[in-house]
Amino acid sequence: MPDLLEQAVEPGEYAGRLQRVRAAMAERNLGALIVSDPSNLFYLTGYDAWSFYTPQCLVLPAVGEAHFFARAMDAAGAAYTSNLRAEQIHGYPEDLVHRPDVHPYDWIAAHARELVPAGADVGIEGDAHFFPVRAYLALDNGLPGHRLVDSGELVNWIRLVKSPHELRQLRIAGAIAAQAMRIALDQLRPGRRQCDLVAEIMAAQAIGTPEHGGDYPAIVPMLPTGEAAGTPHLTWTDRPFRAGEATTIELAGVFGRYHAPLARTVMLGDPPQRLRETAKVVADGMQATLSTIRPGVTGSAVHAAFNDVIAAHGLVKDSRIGYSIGIGYPPDWGERTVSLRSGETTVLSAGMAFHVILGLWMDGWGYELSEPVVVTGDGVEHLTDLSHELTIRR
Amino acid sequence: MPDLLEQAVEPGEYAGRLQRVRAAMAERNLGALIVSDPSNLFYLTGYDAWSFYTPQCLVLPAVGEAHFFARAMDAAGAAYTSNLRAEQIHGYPEDLVHRPDVHPYDWIAAHARELVPAGADVGIEGDAHFFPVRAYLALDNGLPGHRLVDSGELVNWIRLVKSPHELRQLRIAGAIAAQAMRIALDQLRPGRRQCDLVAEIMAAQAIGTPEHGGDYPAIVPMLPTGEAAGTPHLTWTDRPFRAGEATTIELAGVFGRYHAPLARTVMLGDPPQRLRETAKVVADGMQATLSTIRPGVTGSAVHAAFNDVIAAHGLVKDSRIGYSIGIGYPPDWGERTVSLRSGETTVLSAGMAFHVILGLWMDGWGYELSEPVVVTGDGVEHLTDLSHELTIRR
Repeated sequence: MPDLLEQAVEPGEYAGRLQRVRAAMAERNLGALIVSDPSNLFYLTGYDAWSFYTPQCLVLPAVGEAHFFARAMDAAGAAYTSNLRAEQIHGYPEDLVHRPDVHPYDWIAAHARELVPAGADVGIEGDAHFFPVRAYLALDNGLPGHRLVDSGELVNWIRLVKSPHELRQLRIAGAIAAQAMRIALDQLRPGRRQCDLVAEIMAAQAIGTPEHGGDYPAIVPMLPTGEAAGTPHLTWTDRPFRAGEATTIELAGVFGRYHAPLARTVMLGDPPQRLRETAKVVADGMQATLSTIRPGVTGSAVHAAFNDVIAAHGLVKDSRIGYSIGIGYPPDWGERTVSLRSGETTVLSAGMAFHVILGLWMDGWGYELSEPVVVTGDGVEHLTDLSHELTIRR
Repeated sequence: MPDLLEQAVEPGEYAGRLQRVRAAMAERNLGALIVSDPSNLFYLTGYDAWSFYTPQCLVLPAVGEAHFFARAMDAAGAAYTSNLRAEQIHGYPEDLVHRPDVHPYDWIAAHARELVPAGADVGIEGDAHFFPVRAYLALDNGLPGHRLVDSGELVNWIRLVKSPHELRQLRIAGAIAAQAMRIALDQLRPGRRQCDLVAEIMAAQAIGTPEHGGDYPAIVPMLPTGEAAGTPHLTWTDRPFRAGEATTIELAGVFGRYHAPLARTVMLGDPPQRLRETAKVVADGMQATLSTIRPGVTGSAVHAAFNDVIAAHGLVKDSRIGYSIGIGYPPDWGERTVSLRSGETTVLSAGMAFHVILGLWMDGWGYELSEPVVVTGDGVEHLTDLSHELTIRR
């Protein structure tokens, strides 16, 4: 089925991904891995549907074929988007859904038993959003003689360095992000309701470009306004924008599940001096940050480069200034692996992709500027092309 | 802060919700309940932000005040949308996020220890999407002397019967759903890309009505088309619609987090005989289903009423034909409590709300018709006003 992909993933690329995952499993002595994170499922099989609100997983034994388990009505659709053969797809009965006494993972565990080598440790995704506690307990109960161990985001770490195919997807996502942000910055006006601006942003995200339709973002547009801009994750209301207020906008362009997130700040009217100064300092900090990113430096060093710039102005940023990006599903477009923060020892290498986001959330106001980038052989490639200045609309 | 609410929830209503939750806790002998489902957090405190991708929860002791725990940058925003006082809101340090060695719930457990009566059982939400396994294990480890027990969707069940305030929100959501679906049915044309139709749907969902701006839906618009309509949860592509293909559309109108979902089917061109006949049978089945719903009947009886109608035409529907609705956050707008299916013994009562969805997913084609309804004193109130027929566009 033609899908939101620049081109289909080569079968050899899927094989390489599986091979790298299995090598990491071998290092940890895992007889099998239970993959439930939708981003990891997409990465390993191409499976893509809004079915993750009921239990589903890929059981990947160290040796032998992977098997996918989902609700019966979704198993029927798995063949449309995944590279799995019908024999690898198993639908559990509908009457296991939302029951207090039985759980889909009772059924999954019974089938997984035949796939997992006797006595082997089985890896699970302990911080995944769609592997609930009841799933864990049912699996633990249904796999006697096996120890369930947290995989430590095993597949997420394999996803860290992107292939040429993935970089093509990210570049298209970047073009969509830039287009959506241009519309947002242009259409934010006093008297317009926040929800009406969001309508234009979401439409731009879905339309994408004439050549490449947009996919849905893992997070809806966020635009804390006025006093609420002191906190980053408030969604919109139907209040009108007002002159004298600043709005921080965070959105993503998405293509074939690959995300390029982007944040900017807009001021309606003359900016207060503190906002104008902050914008200048943050733009300088962005330049310093981006010119630090290259193969061989640590995430911690990148964080320090930003803090060195803002420290000269009496500012400090303890929290991370970026995180690894790529495939995303709700509720997050981060990969939950490398953060650009103090203490991050991971050494950057070519092909990694980051959302560098410089957010300062103060008491009653805030400022955000971001850039999605790919680490190249000797620096960074920007995925978007917008100015790094505060947008002022009068 | 003014928000997407027809009117603010009365403090007395929040008190009543807490009281009912505590009565249910007492029945199960729970010394405290850890609430992590964003819908339950919104129901009990009004807290509303896209912060559920990092750990957050309300610790509700059987006696004494509730306390909310979230990432520091989100705790700052909790006061904007929740009814909690600053003393009840606690932000855990940023450097606990996405670490392999420590977890935010280590920190939360250390604080929860002081709130939970010694030796008491502590309820957790075992099927919630945002209470991962690592959270559970950290809590178990950090609360020695306490037994963690699954609450069995305790708060979700309290949410089942809606208050007059909640019904007002649902009616507005219904008006938004009808408007978005009218646009979808009207704008679906041969040659238009699926993503371009989705842009119009999403814009309509956000715009809402002139009086009431729309909120974001827990699920993006789904519109499996052509052969893919044989499975319900595929999202869009950038393929153009084509004459001769049918599309099933499922979307929701949302207001202040309350969802009115709605599904219809559109045929581009002359429908095949099987689709025409199915549409007729399903419309009859919908009428029978809706006229069965009233206080005193079971969910199972409602399911049987539908199957009686379609059985006469050689059709059978094993899976559920509806589920309880109300507050929703990604990835699901169902409440995970009552299903309209065989074996459902819950007796319906006034104030419950359901999405009655008659979906038939066949090999290579499908048909969907739905209606969001509220149970009244003697029947049902429809939340939308669209025809129940197959839409045919030539």
